[in-house]
Amino acid sequence: MMQIGMIGLGRMGSNMVRRLMQGGHECVVYNRHVAAIQQLQDEGAVGTASLQDLIARMTKPRAIWLMVPAAIVDAMLTQLAPLLEEGDIVIDGGNSYYRDDIRRAAELQQKGLHYVDVGTSGGVAGLERGYCLMIGGEPDIVKHLNPIFATLAPGSGTAPRTPGRNKVDATAEQGYLHCGPHGAGHFVKMVHNGIEYGLMAAYAEGMNILRHANIGKHAHDSDAETSPMDNPEFYQYELDLPEIAELWRRGSVVASWLLDLTAAALAEDADLAGFSGRVSDSGEGRWTVLASIEEGVPTPVISAALFERFASRGDADYANRLQSAMRKQFGGHDEKKSAAVSNQN
Amino acid sequence: MMQIGMIGLGRMGSNMVRRLMQGGHECVVYNRHVAAIQQLQDEGAVGTASLQDLIARMTKPRAIWLMVPAAIVDAMLTQLAPLLEEGDIVIDGGNSYYRDDIRRAAELQQKGLHYVDVGTSGGVAGLERGYCLMIGGEPDIVKHLNPIFATLAPGSGTAPRTPGRNKVDATAEQGYLHCGPHGAGHFVKMVHNGIEYGLMAAYAEGMNILRHANIGKHAHDSDAETSPMDNPEFYQYELDLPEIAELWRRGSVVASWLLDLTAAALAEDADLAGFSGRVSDSGEGRWTVLASIEEGVPTPVISAALFERFASRGDADYANRLQSAMRKQFGGHDEKKSAAVSNQN
Amino acid sequence: MMQIGMIGLGRMGSNMVRRLMQGGHECVVYNRHVAAIQQLQDEGAVGTASLQDLIARMTKPRAIWLMVPAAIVDAMLTQLAPLLEEGDIVIDGGNSYYRDDIRRAAELQQKGLHYVDVGTSGGVAGLERGYCLMIGGEPDIVKHLNPIFATLAPGSGTAPRTPGRNKVDATAEQGYLHCGPHGAGHFVKMVHNGIEYGLMAAYAEGMNILRHANIGKHAHDSDAETSPMDNPEFYQYELDLPEIAELWRRGSVVASWLLDLTAAALAEDADLAGFSGRVSDSGEGRWTVLASIEEGVPTPVISAALFERFASRGDADYANRLQSAMRKQFGGHDEKKSAAVSNQN
Amino acid sequence: MMQIGMIGLGRMGSNMVRRLMQGGHECVVYNRHVAAIQQLQDEGAVGTASLQDLIARMTKPRAIWLMVPAAIVDAMLTQLAPLLEEGDIVIDGGNSYYRDDIRRAAELQQKGLHYVDVGTSGGVAGLERGYCLMIGGEPDIVKHLNPIFATLAPGSGTAPRTPGRNKVDATAEQGYLHCGPHGAGHFVKMVHNGIEYGLMAAYAEGMNILRHANIGKHAHDSDAETSPMDNPEFYQYELDLPEIAELWRRGSVVASWLLDLTAAALAEDADLAGFSGRVSDSGEGRWTVLASIEEGVPTPVISAALFERFASRGDADYANRLQSAMRKQFGGHDEKKSAAVSNQN
Repeated sequence: MMQIGMIGLGRMGSNMVRRLMQGGHECVVYNRHVAAIQQLQDEGAVGTASLQDLIARMTKPRAIWLMVPAAIVDAMLTQLAPLLEEGDIVIDGGNSYYRDDIRRAAELQQKGLHYVDVGTSGGVAGLERGYCLMIGGEPDIVKHLNPIFATLAPGSGTAPRTPGRNKVDATAEQGYLHCGPHGAGHFVKMVHNGIEYGLMAAYAEGMNILRHANIGKHAHDSDAETSPMDNPEFYQYELDLPEIAELWRRGSVVASWLLDLTAAALAEDADLAGFSGRVSDSGEGRWTVLASIEEGVPTPVISAALFERFASRGDADYANRLQSAMRKQFGGHDEKKSAAVSNQN
Repeated sequence: MMQIGMIGLGRMGSNMVRRLMQGGHECVVYNRHVAAIQQLQDEGAVGTASLQDLIARMTKPRAIWLMVPAAIVDAMLTQLAPLLEEGDIVIDGGNSYYRDDIRRAAELQQKGLHYVDVGTSGGVAGLERGYCLMIGGEPDIVKHLNPIFATLAPGSGTAPRTPGRNKVDATAEQGYLHCGPHGAGHFVKMVHNGIEYGLMAAYAEGMNILRHANIGKHAHDSDAETSPMDNPEFYQYELDLPEIAELWRRGSVVASWLLDLTAAALAEDADLAGFSGRVSDSGEGRWTVLASIEEGVPTPVISAALFERFASRGDADYANRLQSAMRKQFGGHDEKKSAAVSNQN
Repeated sequence: MMQIGMIGLGRMGSNMVRRLMQGGHECVVYNRHVAAIQQLQDEGAVGTASLQDLIARMTKPRAIWLMVPAAIVDAMLTQLAPLLEEGDIVIDGGNSYYRDDIRRAAELQQKGLHYVDVGTSGGVAGLERGYCLMIGGEPDIVKHLNPIFATLAPGSGTAPRTPGRNKVDATAEQGYLHCGPHGAGHFVKMVHNGIEYGLMAAYAEGMNILRHANIGKHAHDSDAETSPMDNPEFYQYELDLPEIAELWRRGSVVASWLLDLTAAALAEDADLAGFSGRVSDSGEGRWTVLASIEEGVPTPVISAALFERFASRGDADYANRLQSAMRKQFGGHDEKKSAAVSNQN
Repeated sequence: MMQIGMIGLGRMGSNMVRRLMQGGHECVVYNRHVAAIQQLQDEGAVGTASLQDLIARMTKPRAIWLMVPAAIVDAMLTQLAPLLEEGDIVIDGGNSYYRDDIRRAAELQQKGLHYVDVGTSGGVAGLERGYCLMIGGEPDIVKHLNPIFATLAPGSGTAPRTPGRNKVDATAEQGYLHCGPHGAGHFVKMVHNGIEYGLMAAYAEGMNILRHANIGKHAHDSDAETSPMDNPEFYQYELDLPEIAELWRRGSVVASWLLDLTAAALAEDADLAGFSGRVSDSGEGRWTVLASIEEGVPTPVISAALFERFASRGDADYANRLQSAMRKQFGGHDEKKSAAVSNQN
């Protein structure tokens, strides 16, 4: 069992503390807002009043896990580094850009401090399912932290053994992996999220096709600019999307955890009326495409998924207006007004 | 000089009649609404009161050009075919699907009638610039109509001779071409329009990047989900889009007629405030991608352009809502609200 | 328990017969090649010598499942239909285009026969995991076949219950679903496969980025046409792809059955040297994009995945040569030769 | 008339010197290889033996134009800067990344030197057609260089006036433009090239569809994995691509300079047999997509064009092999071998 300091007690950080305590580790915790500290203290953690207090309450070499927004990590390190002592370890478990890891590791190394970057996947379900951990850093430091990683990770029982696999004692089967030197953890996590963008978009596009499978029932204009629908008889289906998502969860090629979540979302509301369709992106998708471009590796699918998100937030508007303007110029076409509110959207 | 019947006196049809009359041809015209007939009659055309009247006023073998919406061509042919006599020619100069051409040609052939499909490019500028004509049909029938095509087409003087070209007497240099059997004209026009979609989108995307080159000046949120802009200092440009479009018209690799139109649109209003950004599509782009799929030919650019248009009209909404719903499921992320109205869009 | 006829004893058909027999159903089987019949007869099926024999050995109303290539279904129905009697049922469990289902159902209906289309997912793993079944047809006929579907499907125990789901007795949780009228089964299966294309491509692109994460170690030319790599120091990682695929199987957002298969493939050979990279497509991906275009629903991700497959088979070659030719024209650029064989690919 | 120093006498640099001399300017030239210096000296330029010599032969404030590979600019500036005197001007007319411009301008400014970045479009045709110049830098410095720019640029006569345009004395109509502060010239040129990628790909994809319009004539396999071609009768066209490219040059919506070049390339060889289809990219396309991502502006078309180039060079190979490996895993599908050499490609 180990002692670990946790700074940042949001949804992710708090749940990781809980999972660590369940695993028998001692957690010394700090947060900007005191309520979260109090809550975890009630659950068995050691609450602290300040960074200084957190440092004071930990035994050397300290292992301090940061679970704060990527934009704040550097500021946090500026405060924290002077308080730490040679041999102490700082772990960034958030969504940092891997290039920042490389820089930070070099900076901290000059003070005899160690830096470990951990890409953490699992979301709000992680407390129960465990967290998938992608780790970058010095081999001996990472090895030293293995008890922590092993507790946070899901464990090998959560998926059947891969046929043909002959590695033994490999941590990947537990759900954590030392991927390489500084930055490697967040690099792998970055690509993981890029893949996630592609997967999400593939499901979303497919569901959208199913949703519009009744379009042949609706009248269509025909004028000089719009050709009539060729085959309305082939688009007469009223499909039950929640049931189809549920169906695919068992035995199909597209079964996945994201599909499980899709089924859950659709079980709540098949129309998804509570969402406006502005899809956020938090950096990793962008960085994935940047990396693919610098490597010269084609990523048409992941980039299309990223750009769909941009467009969902209105960032294609000027480009679209320009296309309408060109059509007006060469064809005298006026823009068609939006159709009356459509129920089938 | 020839006699030609024109049915359909919209913007395109009327201007084609004018260009034909300027070339010395006799034009016998008919239209659903009488005002357009009267107008062209005033300009020298032979106006007619009905399809029967039009047929009666023409000498055999008749050559009748349809310039009507694609959705109406079949209905028009149903009315027209019984009135025609063996050897007469019907030309469809609109935006028909080339598969309809193949079917119609076979149907009319049974009555001894000839069918010619003509993909017509040029838009509202065609009266002055001439029309680019892509022609499908029987060789001798197309040859018979050559005087008509030669008048409608721009003529060889409108572009410098292609270096290395050694064909002589080829009509392509005049701006019209017998592309192949029935449907070949509209097939080539279809792909022409597919290319047009790609070109328009390329300009629009590029202009959109230029438009947002000042984004580093604007504050950005940083929270757990949004990483701060890495390099705001690189996005401080206030670029003059109308001047840049104008600039590129001379000497650049991207000079084109579509760029000329872009410059004209931006000269009117750099903000394009009169457009909402709902970009129409009129069939050919869709058919181009369908053809590419049936042929097994990859068209990532043209299809991306087509799908941008779909999305511009809201047809990605459900897919986007589903992605927001998935993010809510795995990360507990609430959708971010739309930013306050942005001037830079 | 029911009696079912199975025509087509390839990998899929044979395994389905085995699963049905394990479930206690009587299977009457026929195949073009006799060896497969003999094999299943040895395992307990009723082997037959001809279609006539198969028909004769079944009790009315017969339920006959076709598991033959989509291209052969119509020929099979031409042979089979005259032998069947009013009330008999033909099930197409292969990969037919849903439009063919609609046509066939109408044709068979005129003879008093029933047609059911079943999209079947599960692949070679289906015998053990069960098959996910997407079903289209008449409600009472589909209901009649439920015991068959229930046996073939995985059953509810193969995935945890979806939180928030309040349907009871819905078959989707068993892994089969009556999706709608004729064609609905194959329509849903078609979109399922379109999604599959997108998912596969997302993983493949991401893995390709990871594979090239060491590209900064390799020298790069710099000439007038190629800019040097800006940041070689950020691409120094030698990542262990089999371990990363294994890692993501537990706790990550991208866990899925396709990822399980990826891990298995990489466990065999991380270099995938046995594959040339020509990715086949079997129709459903194309049809999915066709449907999206006819519906006006944007599918940039799924179409990009489809086009990657086309390009992997060389179908972009002419387009690429043309781009090189253009570059030669405007810049005098000669094509760069292929780099010497690269180990990192 | 002005004096200008030119360093770098490749195809671009030499032709620019010629055009400047034709315009009456004095050109002092230097190059790594002496032959190019001698050639231009024979044509009237002042040849020099070294950078020192070049500096010595120029009058203050010197204006020195660099036309060297982007990768060499920094090294050249390191040599050059110490030789220059306060008030001297260095112009980078190559393909530098605009971020390097910003850095270099700041560095040179500390020595009292001025830096101007000029994106130059026009290629090998520029000597005759003139060069389109996109300029970034300090307003008074740019203004000082206007006579140089005016000579290099095509001049207003090379394109008709844009309708609706009411600016007077704007240089954009001459073919050069001061776009903004340091880097703005190369930023605009970067986006120009990104657009160029999209345009080229749109033409190439369209031509590829036309090329394969005869695919219905070729036999197709049908097996469990490949569905037969649905409509071979619709793909029976043998289209004459050189004539179609020629045709579109007059009166069509897709007329452009790139189309002129396409027609020239196809006039030489419709099969483009001299090209292998490995399409180079020289940086600007990548940077354009990077900029779009940092701005949050969707560029599905330009990025698809960029990724087609990557894939044309084999950089999708591993991703493709992985997809084949997945198919093998779930469906037991062996990869299909390449078809016998196809004439129609």
